[in-house]
Amino acid sequence: MSITLRKARTIIRKALEKGQELELKPLSVVVLDAGGHVIAFEREDGAAPGRFAIAHGKAYGSVMLGMAGTAQMKRAEGQAYFMAAVNGVYGGQVVPVPGGVLVRDKKGAVIGAVGVTGDTSDNDAAAALAGIEAAGLSGEI
Amino acid sequence: MSITLRKARTIIRKALEKGQELELKPLSVVVLDAGGHVIAFEREDGAAPGRFAIAHGKAYGSVMLGMAGTAQMKRAEGQAYFMAAVNGVYGGQVVPVPGGVLVRDKKGAVIGAVGVTGDTSDNDAAAALAGIEAAGLSGEI
Amino acid sequence: MSITLRKARTIIRKALEKGQELELKPLSVVVLDAGGHVIAFEREDGAAPGRFAIAHGKAYGSVMLGMAGTAQMKRAEGQAYFMAAVNGVYGGQVVPVPGGVLVRDKKGAVIGAVGVTGDTSDNDAAAALAGIEAAGLSGEI
Amino acid sequence: MSITLRKARTIIRKALEKGQELELKPLSVVVLDAGGHVIAFEREDGAAPGRFAIAHGKAYGSVMLGMAGTAQMKRAEGQAYFMAAVNGVYGGQVVPVPGGVLVRDKKGAVIGAVGVTGDTSDNDAAAALAGIEAAGLSGEI
Repeated sequence: MSITLRKARTIIRKALEKGQELELKPLSVVVLDAGGHVIAFEREDGAAPGRFAIAHGKAYGSVMLGMAGTAQMKRAEGQAYFMAAVNGVYGGQVVPVPGGVLVRDKKGAVIGAVGVTGDTSDNDAAAALAGIEAAGLSGEI
Repeated sequence: MSITLRKARTIIRKALEKGQELELKPLSVVVLDAGGHVIAFEREDGAAPGRFAIAHGKAYGSVMLGMAGTAQMKRAEGQAYFMAAVNGVYGGQVVPVPGGVLVRDKKGAVIGAVGVTGDTSDNDAAAALAGIEAAGLSGEI
Repeated sequence: MSITLRKARTIIRKALEKGQELELKPLSVVVLDAGGHVIAFEREDGAAPGRFAIAHGKAYGSVMLGMAGTAQMKRAEGQAYFMAAVNGVYGGQVVPVPGGVLVRDKKGAVIGAVGVTGDTSDNDAAAALAGIEAAGLSGEI
Repeated sequence: MSITLRKARTIIRKALEKGQELELKPLSVVVLDAGGHVIAFEREDGAAPGRFAIAHGKAYGSVMLGMAGTAQMKRAEGQAYFMAAVNGVYGGQVVPVPGGVLVRDKKGAVIGAVGVTGDTSDNDAAAALAGIEAAGLSGEI
């Protein structure tokens, strides 16, 4: 099972709607496949120009390590040099905070990840989760 | 004037529709702003996983140099070392072939670029142009 | 469908056996998944130390572009600056010659790639294909 | 004396068997030679896609510094900026935690290193050591 473009669009639209509903700052949302490659991305008007890289970094670390943003943040807080080293081997592409959310199929296998950035990390994660669930998928924040 | 997310969505949808109409291979489409930063991206089901980087490279070179893909290709064919050097200063992020299309406002100012990849370079450029025009904007291939 | 570790082992062993049967120089063989990530690799005794990167580069470009080594070589010969630019966006990780072989499932979808290096590019490709077919899969050289 | 491919295979198989025996999460195992170059690697089904880079980073730092993962971790905890600087000179390829295990010959000379990732760092190291000892070699965790 993989995330189709149709499902990726739903994830992004519903995550952005959730942000508007919660009156969050403008969000940016990326959806990656099971290999960490971009399926779709949108940046809301008013968001800072560099938001693609942050959204991507949250989702990329999640899928490459098989570890969602919350777990990565705990590891970074407990053993900062380890997550710094992980970032080295992944070319500096990992942003280890909430807002990187793993997407799993019904058997629990990771089929991709969603990265959201723009508001607080916890709000970013809530928006990502809303999008994932609206697409009928299961998310791990 | 800038490319809004709403217009970027139109560009992408219409470029993909053009590809389907012409029976092209699955396409990937990116829209960048006037600073070369990603506004939106979509990769059709069945496209190779690495297509984001190629689409981005076509659009990024266009907006950074203010020179569309066709002009870049001519320069690369006539003076390969120059485009290689350009790629050096831009961190290897430029793919100098058609499919990178500049977007201009009514006064002719560059407000962004579109990058399309998946079929032949010329077909990629045709799909990009169709998307840009459907959004009421003017493209330079 | 994906390439299991069991199938990857078969591909590598049979590719190496083919090399021994054809009296090729010591080979190195990598198997990547559909996202371009390493499943398994072996370097025969007597091979040069840097062979992982060459084997990986052949397979990585194949899966990222959805284009096998032979097609990449043709493109590189006809439009050298294009493949150089592709290498830029993929971080210099592409080696566009035969020996990078796409692996497809029964419906034709790319499920990974095999990279072989050590002898001539054509012999490398032959060894890769022998391994892929011994695993009951279909290869595109 | 060097680690032959035959011995590398034994190391990997026995490390993976140890992981299954201890009911660890899916493991990934790399074997490097005395120059820090890859001899063999395997990633178990179900492991996250980015595990090659982590396994490699554990083994690479070990062999390049002549210092196993446990010693590297102590240094990172006591003098984080030193290990960060080490990573700078080695291109960000070092992951300084247990699971990077030095392999020594009978005279004590380093002939390579093994990197294991997937479970806790200590369990990773135990699996690596089991593999090395099964191959009749001596490991330093």
